[in-house]
Amino acid sequence: MATINNNYLKLKAGYLFPEIARRVNAFAAAHPDAKIIRLGIGDVTEPLPSACRDAMIQAIADMGNRDTFKGYGPEQGYAWLREKIAAHDFQARGCDVDASEIFISDGSKCDCGNILDIFGDDNAIAVTDPVYPVYVDTNVMAGHTGDTNERGEYGGLVYLPITADNNFTAEIPSQKVDLIYLCFPNNPTGATATKEHLKAWVDYARAHGSIIFFDTAYEAFITDPNLPHSIYEIEGARDCAIEFRSFSKNAGFTGTRCAFTVVPKKLTAKAADGSDVELWNLWNRRQSTKFNGVSYIVQRGAEAVYSEAGQVQVKELIGFYMENARIIREKLTAAGIAVYGGVNAPYVWVKTPNGLSSWDFFDKLLSSCNVVGTPGSGFGAAGEGYFRISAFNSRENVEEAMQRIADKFTV
Amino acid sequence: MATINNNYLKLKAGYLFPEIARRVNAFAAAHPDAKIIRLGIGDVTEPLPSACRDAMIQAIADMGNRDTFKGYGPEQGYAWLREKIAAHDFQARGCDVDASEIFISDGSKCDCGNILDIFGDDNAIAVTDPVYPVYVDTNVMAGHTGDTNERGEYGGLVYLPITADNNFTAEIPSQKVDLIYLCFPNNPTGATATKEHLKAWVDYARAHGSIIFFDTAYEAFITDPNLPHSIYEIEGARDCAIEFRSFSKNAGFTGTRCAFTVVPKKLTAKAADGSDVELWNLWNRRQSTKFNGVSYIVQRGAEAVYSEAGQVQVKELIGFYMENARIIREKLTAAGIAVYGGVNAPYVWVKTPNGLSSWDFFDKLLSSCNVVGTPGSGFGAAGEGYFRISAFNSRENVEEAMQRIADKFTV
Repeated sequence: MATINNNYLKLKAGYLFPEIARRVNAFAAAHPDAKIIRLGIGDVTEPLPSACRDAMIQAIADMGNRDTFKGYGPEQGYAWLREKIAAHDFQARGCDVDASEIFISDGSKCDCGNILDIFGDDNAIAVTDPVYPVYVDTNVMAGHTGDTNERGEYGGLVYLPITADNNFTAEIPSQKVDLIYLCFPNNPTGATATKEHLKAWVDYARAHGSIIFFDTAYEAFITDPNLPHSIYEIEGARDCAIEFRSFSKNAGFTGTRCAFTVVPKKLTAKAADGSDVELWNLWNRRQSTKFNGVSYIVQRGAEAVYSEAGQVQVKELIGFYMENARIIREKLTAAGIAVYGGVNAPYVWVKTPNGLSSWDFFDKLLSSCNVVGTPGSGFGAAGEGYFRISAFNSRENVEEAMQRIADKFTV
Repeated sequence: MATINNNYLKLKAGYLFPEIARRVNAFAAAHPDAKIIRLGIGDVTEPLPSACRDAMIQAIADMGNRDTFKGYGPEQGYAWLREKIAAHDFQARGCDVDASEIFISDGSKCDCGNILDIFGDDNAIAVTDPVYPVYVDTNVMAGHTGDTNERGEYGGLVYLPITADNNFTAEIPSQKVDLIYLCFPNNPTGATATKEHLKAWVDYARAHGSIIFFDTAYEAFITDPNLPHSIYEIEGARDCAIEFRSFSKNAGFTGTRCAFTVVPKKLTAKAADGSDVELWNLWNRRQSTKFNGVSYIVQRGAEAVYSEAGQVQVKELIGFYMENARIIREKLTAAGIAVYGGVNAPYVWVKTPNGLSSWDFFDKLLSSCNVVGTPGSGFGAAGEGYFRISAFNSRENVEEAMQRIADKFTV
C-alpha cells in the first residue's frame, strides 16, 4: 500500500491569495462598475528588455540549424552565462565568487525550496516573521516542523520578529540555529541590511557552524551605494552562506524563468561521522540528478542582461518601478499613513492606521478606494497591523490608486 | 552546526559517462587522427521544428508589449497547452485524462525525481535492472535505500531483471512493492510493452494499493499500432498510475526544456491515519510551492507541436531517427551481432558477441572502429553483456559508423 508524505498534511491551506481573491471577487460582484486596481502581487508588468528579446530570437535561430543546435546543456548552466554573472554581479563588487560556483536555475523559488534536499533533517531552522512563505512551507514538507499553534507558527521553527521596533532587521538569536533564511532587500517589508548587520550574522554563523540562506532577489532595487548587494561583500561569508538570485525582478523574467544560486567551494556542513562535507559537491550532484538545466534560449536572454544595451534597459526598468514606489510612499505619507521600505525595494510596507488589523485595512481600502494590497498578517503573525503595497504596476494605475487614497481613504 | 543529508554519501560516483569520457579521451590522445563517432548519448541532434521556432518568436514579441506581456504564469502550466495535450495525447487515444490533471514542467527528469517528495519514506520500491539511473539515485538521496553491494545494487530496492530471457519485460514481483518505475519504450533496452503486459501491472498495482510511475518519454517512437502510448489506455490505470512525458525526444526539446506529468484526480495513497489522500492535491501543492512554471515562450513552442505543421514536422523528425535505428539494426545484424530494440524506440540494445563484457566490447569498438556507445553494465548489473547504441545522430555519422563495424569489427 503506497503511503504519502504525511508532512504535507501539516500545511495550512494557501489561504492568503485565495482569500484575497475571494474578497475581491465578492466586492466586484456587488459593485460591477468599480474599477479595481491591484497592487497586491509582486509580479512585474513592463515589457521584457529588447536586448533580452533580441538575444532569444538569435538563440531560436541557432536552434534551427544543425550546426548551432543545442541539445542537453550543462545542468549547471552554460559557462558563458556563469562567467558574465561572476564578473558583473560579484567580482566587480569585490566578491570572490568564481563562475564554477554559480548554478543557473529556472527560479529562485525552486532553489530556495530544493536547497533543503542536501541538508539533514536535524538542523534547527530560523526564519524571520513576517517571511516569504516558501521558506516555511518547504520546511514543513521536509518534515522539519511540528503542527501550527493558534498564531499560525509551526512547532520547531525559530521565528525572528521583524517590526518597526527593530527597524525590520532581526536580532541575532540567543539560541543556536543551524540554517538561517535572510532576505534583503526584504519581501515583504522592503527593509534593507547594512554591511554591519550582515557582518553580525556572518560572525554568528561562523561561530556556530551555521549556514545562511541569503535571498537577494531584489538586489537590483538597491539605490543606496553603501548597502551590500551580495552577502559575499561581507568578509567570511564564503564560509557560511549560500546566495539566491534571480532575473525575475531586475530584467522582468517572472514569466521567462531564470535565476541562479551561489554555493562557494569549500563551504561545508557536518556529516553524521563528524566529517566536513563540501556543499558544492552535494548541490552539484542534486542538480545533475534532479534537474536538466535551463532552456538554452532563456539563458541567452539572461546573458543579454549583461550587455551594454541590457544594462541600460534594466536600469530603466528598475527606475520605472522605483518611481512608482516613490509616488506610493509620498502619497501615503501625505495621507497620514506611516510607510516603510520602498526606497531600496519595490515593496512599501504600510503600518495600518489607528490599530486596524491587516484584514480590516484590506477591506477598507478595497471598499473606499477599490485598491487591493496584501495583508501583512498573511506573511506571519508579526506582520499583523501591516500591509504590503507593490510598486509593480503601470504609472497610471499607481497614480490613480494613490489619488483615490488621498481623496477618499478615512479610517 | 549545520548537518548534511547523509544519504548523498551512499551515492556511487556518476562513473558511467565520466569513465566513457576518460577512455575516449585517452584513445583520442593516442590516436589524434582517428575520427571518433559518438553513438552513446541519448540526445537529439536535428534542428527544432520550424513550427515551434515560429511560435516562440511570436511569444517573444508578446513579451515586448505591455498588453501581451506575461509575468508569472500558472505553476501548473497554461490552460491552452494543457488542453491541447489532453485532447491530442490522451482523449484522441481513448484515455480519460482531463487538462487539469496535466502538470507542465521543465523536464521529465525533474518530475521523475521530485515525485518522491509527496510519498512516504516507508514505501517498498521496485525498479528494473538495467534502469534509467535517475530513478535509483533519487531514491538513494531520499533515504529509501541502504548502501550498495558488490553488484552495485542498493539495499532496500527491489530489482526486477530485464534481459533477453524475459523479452526485456520485468516479471510481476512475488513480493509486495508500493512504488514501481516502468519505462516503455524502454531506456536503455528499446523494449516495448504490450497492453496485456501493462494490464498485468495495473492489476497488480490495484490489488496491492501500489502506484506505478510510468515513464513514456519515448512514446513518439512507437511504430506498432497495437502498442499503447499511454498507461491510461489500460483499464484501471487511473486508479494506480502517474505518467511522465516529455517534448525532449519527440520535438527535440532537450535543450529547450518542456515536459509534463499526469496525476489523475482521485488517485490516492495512504496517510498515517489510514485515510486515502488524493495525490493530485499533494503534487499541486508541491509544484505551487517549489516551482514557478515553465517559461511562457517555451510553452508556446510546445503548444506548436500540436499544430498541423508541428505534427508533420515531429513525424519527420521521428522518421529520421527511426531510419537511423533501422540502419543500425540491419548493419549490426549483418555483422553477426544480436540486437534488440530499435523498432519502436531510438535505442538499439546489443548483445555483446562471444561473451564479451560490456566494457570489453566498448574498448574493442572504440579501438577497431572508433565508435563510441554505452556499456550496458552502466545501467545496472543485469545490463552486463549488453551495449546501448543510440540512433540520435546524423545519417552520415550513423552510416559511416556502421560501415566501419561491417568492415573492421572482429571479436
